[in-house]
Amino acid sequence: MGEPVLLGLDLGGTKISAVAGTPDGRIIRKAVVPTRGEEGPERVVSRIIDLLRLVRESAQVSAASVAVLGVSHGGPVDPRTGLCSSPNIPGWRDIDLGSLLGDALSSPVALDNDANAGAVAEFLYGAGRGLRHICYMTMGTGIGGGIVSDGRVFRGAFGMAGEIGHVTIVRDGRECSCGRRGCLQAYASGPAIEAIAAERAAADHDTELLPLVDSVGRIPCEKLCELARQGNANARAVLQEAAAAMGTGVANLIKVVDPELVAIGTLAVRAGDLLLDRINEVAYAEYGGLMPERRPIVASELGDDVGDLAALALAAAHLEGSA
Amino acid sequence: MGEPVLLGLDLGGTKISAVAGTPDGRIIRKAVVPTRGEEGPERVVSRIIDLLRLVRESAQVSAASVAVLGVSHGGPVDPRTGLCSSPNIPGWRDIDLGSLLGDALSSPVALDNDANAGAVAEFLYGAGRGLRHICYMTMGTGIGGGIVSDGRVFRGAFGMAGEIGHVTIVRDGRECSCGRRGCLQAYASGPAIEAIAAERAAADHDTELLPLVDSVGRIPCEKLCELARQGNANARAVLQEAAAAMGTGVANLIKVVDPELVAIGTLAVRAGDLLLDRINEVAYAEYGGLMPERRPIVASELGDDVGDLAALALAAAHLEGSA
Repeated sequence: MGEPVLLGLDLGGTKISAVAGTPDGRIIRKAVVPTRGEEGPERVVSRIIDLLRLVRESAQVSAASVAVLGVSHGGPVDPRTGLCSSPNIPGWRDIDLGSLLGDALSSPVALDNDANAGAVAEFLYGAGRGLRHICYMTMGTGIGGGIVSDGRVFRGAFGMAGEIGHVTIVRDGRECSCGRRGCLQAYASGPAIEAIAAERAAADHDTELLPLVDSVGRIPCEKLCELARQGNANARAVLQEAAAAMGTGVANLIKVVDPELVAIGTLAVRAGDLLLDRINEVAYAEYGGLMPERRPIVASELGDDVGDLAALALAAAHLEGSA
Repeated sequence: MGEPVLLGLDLGGTKISAVAGTPDGRIIRKAVVPTRGEEGPERVVSRIIDLLRLVRESAQVSAASVAVLGVSHGGPVDPRTGLCSSPNIPGWRDIDLGSLLGDALSSPVALDNDANAGAVAEFLYGAGRGLRHICYMTMGTGIGGGIVSDGRVFRGAFGMAGEIGHVTIVRDGRECSCGRRGCLQAYASGPAIEAIAAERAAADHDTELLPLVDSVGRIPCEKLCELARQGNANARAVLQEAAAAMGTGVANLIKVVDPELVAIGTLAVRAGDLLLDRINEVAYAEYGGLMPERRPIVASELGDDVGDLAALALAAAHLEGSA
């Protein structure tokens, strides 16, 4: 008997990634196919099963020796029923994905949404190693969050806990993609930063920034960061203001959830030097004094494999009876 | 063997209340003395022990038959060590109150801060009966919160979870008593409402409201509610605006914690008719669509005995191994 082998599945609107790996987060085999949600849920499920079998075989693991399959699902999972829905896959609504995959592969399944799965991965393999209470946030197209408290995922009553991107930080503030006003996401998500940068370039007639405005009226974050590093004052200011808004959002999360550490993925990983100091500074000004202990706000340590590690982490946590 | 008898202790900055009661929240005996914190922690602890012995004897319960002592502590409790501190009792810092009382009374002790204890009471005896995930909020001098998730108190890493009063709802907004800006508490606590009412009375030269402004420049909530019920438009508007801010604050809590129900004490109990509809309306506009299920936001059902029931509830939850 060697180390147990786990399978991981990361299901998103664009691609499906399957891995075989070990409980300590080492990936042995990996395969990726497009999701092709437009073909309907049945075809997607059958493509997932094929992919998992392929990875299992290529890792030379028999059905009986797969300890657990972890599934990181890119959309809500009802914790009472396990049913999965996704706004990004047509017709993907109330799918009992866990049972379907468990039956097809004869493996126990640990399934959760991608924010919670990411939090478990950060807890087991990333910046949260050795801690008991952490929050994990994404700072990309959307701002999402997952909470691990006392070593377990905090899901809430309907599996929606950690919706930090739509916490209101400015009543009657800037319009958010959700149609409401003043959400954190309206100030600190990738698209929000890109739109604010273009607004600022126009308002300030910034001849360095204006040529970077794209066809949808945005300055891509990558270019904005590049200009900021080259010393463009508007680019720096836009990023510092987004970081300040993020600082308020993270402080709000800390006040409600009281974690030891907050790890932020996506933009905080790619542009951490331009954001994290200011995020920490603003957040501490808002929770310090009120609450004991300084809580580090850091870039996620999971890197580009975050989706695969998230899936593996669910399986690993299931195996050891935690999270 | 009859029903087990529990002791409850509610320790605040002004008074100490001790009760004997039953696990279903029936109070058999009660005694209250002033805290007199200025006499120092040792005297306060000895007064607490005397009071608990008195109540125990008057309820004719021998030491051996007290099942559990529940302690609702009006200040932070470190969940890692059980040490208690209170800003309202001089020198009351890192006191191991649980051990001191357990030794003196030879009883098991269940101790928590008053917000968490209130949440457990609401969960066992109040509006949360039969549910698994609830939040309890106070709306008085301060705005505090306690969280029960899946039948257990959610404490966070340092016992500070649920600090909802200081969640920022308006960045750079109105000054809060904590020295920061834009906290929920700066818009919806009792003192905030009273100050805003006086400001509005002055700005609008309201001859009904102006005579009610007291020596510290506030219109007491009780009088404000009375005028609102009599149809004064400014009084109604001030309360509706406070309710709207509270709606945003509760929605923020719901987005992070995902409870089935939120119960609000103090002002929401005394003036629920003037506040709760608007709180629900604004909150639902902010979380509905984003999250499934309508979550009732209701007045606490605990009434004036909330402190005693909070202490008893901790004991009852300990007895049944929950919370």
